Amino acid sequence: MTDADPELLDLLSTRLGSQHVIRDAASMEGYLVEERKLYRGTALAVVRPGSTEEVAFVVRECARAGVPIVPQGGNTGLVGGGVPHSGLVLSLARLDRIREVDPFNATITVEAGCILKTVQDEAEKADCLFPLSLASGGSCRIGGNIATNAGGLNVLRYGNTRDLVLGLEVVLADGRVWNGLKGLRKDNTGYDLKNLFVGSEGTLGIVTAAVLKLFPRPKSRTVAFIGCPSPHAALDLFDAFRRRAGDQLTAFEFMPRFALQIVLKHAAGAVPPLAGEHEAYALIELSSPDPEIDLRERLERVLGEALEAGIVEDAAIAASETQNDALWHLRESLAHVQRFEGGSIKHDVAVPVSKVADFIVTATQACEAALPGVRVCAFGHFGDGNIHFNLSQPVAMEKAAFLAQWERFNRIVHDIVHAMNGSISAEHGVGLIKRDELVLYKDPVALDLMRTLKRTLDPKNILNPGKVLALESELPPSLP
Amino acid sequence: MTDADPELLDLLSTRLGSQHVIRDAASMEGYLVEERKLYRGTALAVVRPGSTEEVAFVVRECARAGVPIVPQGGNTGLVGGGVPHSGLVLSLARLDRIREVDPFNATITVEAGCILKTVQDEAEKADCLFPLSLASGGSCRIGGNIATNAGGLNVLRYGNTRDLVLGLEVVLADGRVWNGLKGLRKDNTGYDLKNLFVGSEGTLGIVTAAVLKLFPRPKSRTVAFIGCPSPHAALDLFDAFRRRAGDQLTAFEFMPRFALQIVLKHAAGAVPPLAGEHEAYALIELSSPDPEIDLRERLERVLGEALEAGIVEDAAIAASETQNDALWHLRESLAHVQRFEGGSIKHDVAVPVSKVADFIVTATQACEAALPGVRVCAFGHFGDGNIHFNLSQPVAMEKAAFLAQWERFNRIVHDIVHAMNGSISAEHGVGLIKRDELVLYKDPVALDLMRTLKRTLDPKNILNPGKVLALESELPPSLP
Repeated sequence: MTDADPELLDLLSTRLGSQHVIRDAASMEGYLVEERKLYRGTALAVVRPGSTEEVAFVVRECARAGVPIVPQGGNTGLVGGGVPHSGLVLSLARLDRIREVDPFNATITVEAGCILKTVQDEAEKADCLFPLSLASGGSCRIGGNIATNAGGLNVLRYGNTRDLVLGLEVVLADGRVWNGLKGLRKDNTGYDLKNLFVGSEGTLGIVTAAVLKLFPRPKSRTVAFIGCPSPHAALDLFDAFRRRAGDQLTAFEFMPRFALQIVLKHAAGAVPPLAGEHEAYALIELSSPDPEIDLRERLERVLGEALEAGIVEDAAIAASETQNDALWHLRESLAHVQRFEGGSIKHDVAVPVSKVADFIVTATQACEAALPGVRVCAFGHFGDGNIHFNLSQPVAMEKAAFLAQWERFNRIVHDIVHAMNGSISAEHGVGLIKRDELVLYKDPVALDLMRTLKRTLDPKNILNPGKVLALESELPPSLP
Repeated sequence: MTDADPELLDLLSTRLGSQHVIRDAASMEGYLVEERKLYRGTALAVVRPGSTEEVAFVVRECARAGVPIVPQGGNTGLVGGGVPHSGLVLSLARLDRIREVDPFNATITVEAGCILKTVQDEAEKADCLFPLSLASGGSCRIGGNIATNAGGLNVLRYGNTRDLVLGLEVVLADGRVWNGLKGLRKDNTGYDLKNLFVGSEGTLGIVTAAVLKLFPRPKSRTVAFIGCPSPHAALDLFDAFRRRAGDQLTAFEFMPRFALQIVLKHAAGAVPPLAGEHEAYALIELSSPDPEIDLRERLERVLGEALEAGIVEDAAIAASETQNDALWHLRESLAHVQRFEGGSIKHDVAVPVSKVADFIVTATQACEAALPGVRVCAFGHFGDGNIHFNLSQPVAMEKAAFLAQWERFNRIVHDIVHAMNGSISAEHGVGLIKRDELVLYKDPVALDLMRTLKRTLDPKNILNPGKVLALESELPPSLP
């Protein structure tokens, strides 16, 4: 903090209005602590600009004063990417206008501060689907989804956030505004700047608005909950559905026996979907924009063949939208109920889909061998090769003693992921929590290119410094 | 050319074998002239490395000697991007191995020199589809497709080349190799380097290999050729199909009356698909991996409603694979037959899909007003908003006098595209032919970011210099 800072805050107050430059501790609290309470940050102030021009003004003045900025959307990230450790928090929450809906172009143009749920609702009003779907949909903001390239439940069919972005408006580190708000399916006029900012976690520029893809709204949906003898059988089942149902396969989620047990034990309203227990469960959703298609007939056809082949042991097919929701509830409750089983050590990893069953089996065995009694809860987006490889503590162990082994389990799990040419951060991003882990596994040339890009696009290192990458000039973040 | 150059060529001959350092004019000819004979280049030599390591060696030595490199795949580009104007041509043709096919992961790993058709065939052997489909499929090479982010006939359903690339191996401007050959559906471990190289036309790095997405192979297909009263009716028809058929709609191509007339006049084996003539034609393809689905029934259902609504005047639905191919033949012949009508002035543009009919009508009127008798052949990938807005000369005009008006028509057509927030290069790229045009229409901040990226990733400006962008230090290319 330099002598210029009080002057800076006065300058920002004058431009933004003093009510949008928050300096008192109580009002700042929600911006300093992250979702899982893993980090608590510090900041000079929280600023809440109300337009792209105001964001540009703040960035320009901060660049001049050398004051770092942490951009924040809904502050729902899981990797500490939005935690400040000096300088300003720049909240995008007031940039929350839907600028345009164009159903014929199947696009929606939104500002960064729009709540995801609002974007979904606006799309639905135009009889369209905005498919990004996350547990935090009611509070996360689209700018954060873009900055972190959020994944979620519909990636199998519709792609990651990156795949849903057609155009961006971005404030650069020197306060210039790049207007790339094009809603085009084809545009080969030079380098792809857009994808440089998507997933850069606020370290290369601040997304202020975006043109997003919409899709025809599904008019038919069928969900099934299926018991399989093993993860490998579930993989065979996935392959059968993908080949036969193509794009009508909109979800293929995986849960192990332990996961369903704790859901049924802790989640309100959870009802056993099948009579017996199985080693592996798949939740399958088929959907289509065609209201007249018979998805159930198709589902039963593929399942019938799978039963005969021995890769399915039992299946429950929902007979109504209420039952569809009830089956999804089993899967969606899982993130929430793990806390009731004590400490969790979590990994968000991806491997090639062809290796996902091998990964689950190998990593489960390795963890169980490393700590007898540990309860592996390896669930998630099987069809994307993305597994939330979480470990619940042994029943009789101290929570703190278990959590003290996080680093050790990182090494066990991430080494297996790495050997399978996988990713140690599939959908949650790097932020702070995986920044130093990344250095162990990422191709060194890629890391060097990343550092070069960061230095080029943010030469003063004022945009979310210390996240994703540590530059040589930086001290390690002094966060607890 | 410095004194070091003869030494450089000797060094490369020693490492690559002298037969792979081509210096005689006759053997170099095919590398110096581009597809449409718009440009003829010059080069010291053509080098044909046989591996990634050899590519890296060539680039390292050229960087040391300050000798520029033009990477070339099949040399089928349409914008002069592969034309050398000094230095070396680096042909990727010998890097032509299929490294891996992984049907469960739905990926294929290929080297840059693989012919597109070979990649398609290898995918098919694994009962998969590699959907990129271009007129030059039998001679273009996948590295060139990636470097130019090729579009083609299947973008509506499967995306551009960019969307088909999961991982890359790239030789950087200093000869280092970035190994990003991951076949993952989710990977949030830092900045998206891949998309920086895809579509950069060989100016930021040389793609040597890629992991590409595969899809379930379609097992059912139905094609229809449809007569509409206007481009606006065709847009309504597109919207109806997209909403009802969703992802089974794999193509929606457009031709005006004049286009079908010249196809029927000049293309071998072309048979009139409909009894009468119509102002606008759509070629529609539905396909599905499900062999048991009744696509024809679905097609007829949507067409029936469209006939009733007056947006369709007549339709021919193919009753066999032979008839499917015959209808596609009408569309695919179009690029070839225009030459028989004299000089063509061509534009490859895109607008938001909601504006595509407005664009066709407005730009057609503007060109007809500017030059009475000009015959507009505005056809293409209507469902992507991508129109090949080509002009055939007035029948009685001199070809040269017509072609001399290219710049004038660029201004007329591109101004309309720009006013609709469109792209002046939808799928062919920038290369040389649109480099200076780009400066007129691209956001200046975007252009500046592009120049910054170029200077950062290729500080000696040795990779395909003068293409896409002109740096201040460069003379304009002295090409005819």
